[in-house]
Amino acid sequence: MSLKALHKKHVLTPWVAQAPLNPPLVVRGEGVWLYDEEGRRYLDLSSGLVALNLGHGHPRLVRAIAEQAATLAYAAPSLFHDKRALLAKALSDLSPWPEGARVFFTPSGTEANEDALKFVRHLTGRFKVLAAYRSFHGATHASASLTGENRRWPSEPGNAPGVVHFFAPYPYRSPFYTEDPKEETARALDHLERVLLHEDPKRVAAIFLEPVVGSNGVIVYPEGYLEGVRALCDRHGILLVFDEVMTGFGRLGAAFAALRFGVVPDLITFAKGVTSAYVPLGGVLVRETLARYFDENPLPTGHTYSGHPLAVAAGLASLEAYREEGLFERVLAMEGFFQESLKALKDRHPVVGDVRGLGAFYALELVRDRETKEPLSPWHAPFSPAMQALQKALWQEGVYLLAKHNILVVAPPLTIKEEEFLEGVERLSRALRQVEVEALG
Amino acid sequence: MSLKALHKKHVLTPWVAQAPLNPPLVVRGEGVWLYDEEGRRYLDLSSGLVALNLGHGHPRLVRAIAEQAATLAYAAPSLFHDKRALLAKALSDLSPWPEGARVFFTPSGTEANEDALKFVRHLTGRFKVLAAYRSFHGATHASASLTGENRRWPSEPGNAPGVVHFFAPYPYRSPFYTEDPKEETARALDHLERVLLHEDPKRVAAIFLEPVVGSNGVIVYPEGYLEGVRALCDRHGILLVFDEVMTGFGRLGAAFAALRFGVVPDLITFAKGVTSAYVPLGGVLVRETLARYFDENPLPTGHTYSGHPLAVAAGLASLEAYREEGLFERVLAMEGFFQESLKALKDRHPVVGDVRGLGAFYALELVRDRETKEPLSPWHAPFSPAMQALQKALWQEGVYLLAKHNILVVAPPLTIKEEEFLEGVERLSRALRQVEVEALG
Repeated sequence: MSLKALHKKHVLTPWVAQAPLNPPLVVRGEGVWLYDEEGRRYLDLSSGLVALNLGHGHPRLVRAIAEQAATLAYAAPSLFHDKRALLAKALSDLSPWPEGARVFFTPSGTEANEDALKFVRHLTGRFKVLAAYRSFHGATHASASLTGENRRWPSEPGNAPGVVHFFAPYPYRSPFYTEDPKEETARALDHLERVLLHEDPKRVAAIFLEPVVGSNGVIVYPEGYLEGVRALCDRHGILLVFDEVMTGFGRLGAAFAALRFGVVPDLITFAKGVTSAYVPLGGVLVRETLARYFDENPLPTGHTYSGHPLAVAAGLASLEAYREEGLFERVLAMEGFFQESLKALKDRHPVVGDVRGLGAFYALELVRDRETKEPLSPWHAPFSPAMQALQKALWQEGVYLLAKHNILVVAPPLTIKEEEFLEGVERLSRALRQVEVEALG
Repeated sequence: MSLKALHKKHVLTPWVAQAPLNPPLVVRGEGVWLYDEEGRRYLDLSSGLVALNLGHGHPRLVRAIAEQAATLAYAAPSLFHDKRALLAKALSDLSPWPEGARVFFTPSGTEANEDALKFVRHLTGRFKVLAAYRSFHGATHASASLTGENRRWPSEPGNAPGVVHFFAPYPYRSPFYTEDPKEETARALDHLERVLLHEDPKRVAAIFLEPVVGSNGVIVYPEGYLEGVRALCDRHGILLVFDEVMTGFGRLGAAFAALRFGVVPDLITFAKGVTSAYVPLGGVLVRETLARYFDENPLPTGHTYSGHPLAVAAGLASLEAYREEGLFERVLAMEGFFQESLKALKDRHPVVGDVRGLGAFYALELVRDRETKEPLSPWHAPFSPAMQALQKALWQEGVYLLAKHNILVVAPPLTIKEEEFLEGVERLSRALRQVEVEALG
């Protein structure tokens, strides 16, 4: 039996019905390229799931993983560990708090959000939490309950109680009936305040927010919104949690979105870029003034793989690579180039309704008609035939892109060369043209 | 600042108040030994958290991890991957179902239980699930809600609804008022049936069960209990989920407890031993006759690190090591030796109230008095001074043991030599003596 047939027979693939599946079977990666079993190559233009910030086969990471595997791959998290201490210190140094931070390590981003939820409830003694519609915070029960889209629905009925959803800005399709960014911000903050007043702000432990919306469309909030949320939190003694699982570690040209935007949350959850996804790792950064609560009060959580030695070693090597190669700064320097290349793509393709993003993190929102903005594939439903055709065309053109609803997420490894990015855009353009001609006529 | 001070300043350690912490800082492992920064060594007599089945520095795993890191450390789970297919096939071959199985991979055991919960609800259309008191199924929200002890409490109020707890056998402290194992089984099954009847068995999707209770005391159920639970499930169309996160991969001398006991569940959750914990990995095995439901119905979950290439490569290498070194059979051959060595320890130490276990999986239950069975440290509370003194004595004697409540879990790597185990027992004996003399007078 072929490996592909074996995969289909024995592996369950996330989120989709299994019968129609027919993706490439990848066996090797090098830089920004993935290779399948027949040697065909695919440009990894979404860094996997916005995770592989350093590209495939990064020598420093490969070496660090090999060395740590031989030295100490695993030890119980109740024991202290050298590299775990060093990575926590490095993360504290990168954090936006003058007093520093403590880290609770998890194996994944969803577990980080689960634990952050416990932390804010224990720290405040309050129960309710707010999260945005059109957000994704993970697939485990509490994180799915925080999630503001259809990946929450399979956990229903029976979501974790105490979560209230609100609308955040979405300039391309404003939930606040305006096309003016200033008005979008003002109305979004007014809406959030109304929700708070109806829920009783004194009962709200925290607001969870992706500082830039991730897989639901790379929505960059208009100026003043994050500052306004921070001010609302301050006014009511509410903690602000930034879910930086996608935005952390250079994706926006800084260690964290908090630093890029100059808005300081109380907790940060992270994963993905911390090891460039080479080894599963996530965690919660808690500012020191809050974390010391746990000196005398038991930490309300734990995981077998908390602070996993192999994972923290990969984390340390990743942070060294980011610094030594100046990759956060590189993203800032390339931002204009990324934006122009994608804007040019929009100029050539009527199916591209909107291009937006910052740093190395962009979305193309695909529409049937720029006037009506009718999505190429409906929200919260299986891919439309046109979107399926696009997916197929992308494989044929040799480019991998994370797609959700009518959104393509363009988030290349931070190490991508200009010519590689342009080649990716060209491959993407050919796939879009095919769909425009064949599926949209 | 020393590494230990740095760890304390920046890392949050699971489940405990941070201020009193002072464990060794480990930097290296070799076989069954852990080494701290000063070169002192500790016998890893619990395989970390009952996870490191192949011991530290296993050459085959170290090699496989180094090779996979260089080849392809990570790719999105929507792509197929060669080693993921091969590991799923190997797990299917090890599974107890004649028709085989499909695997959904997760980064951890708790996420496996989260996903299994979604699966059983989607597969049956029923909502309620039953789980045992004195069980541990994980720390994320739904898994914590399944958990039958105090690691659930920090998630309260607001647990995932629909979980009902029942009492399972516990011969040493029978919840069914008997000392006869046959009566324990009969009454436990009667109790479970009563709970089912009061909950309406037609509303129950599944029963979650550790086939041998893990960190809550390595309780081996008396003969006939697991068979009886299976029969109750069959009678009412309820799915049986074995949480084999600890019991899988040779811990009981077979690939799964299901095979050791000849009782066939419908789903199996696993983690830990699948990679010997070298890379975080877990998953859900779903028997093929059930899994095909997802051919046409979308899988209700997903994770960035599902089927992580580095992790599945470590899984493949682990399964090869188990097979080539005959480790499951080795555990069966050593079972009598393990049991005799620990029984001898009980003979020498009045503080050891009970020794129980199978394969390479044992518990010592510590008591102040064998007659009254008063626990050395109370359940569901911080360690008593005597238990704290024992913990300290264990470090001094150079042995690492997983301790919870009044329980020590003895679960060495499956590769341990007889003389190493005897040395571990001797070190443990000296620590117990110290506590008997100093703390219990």
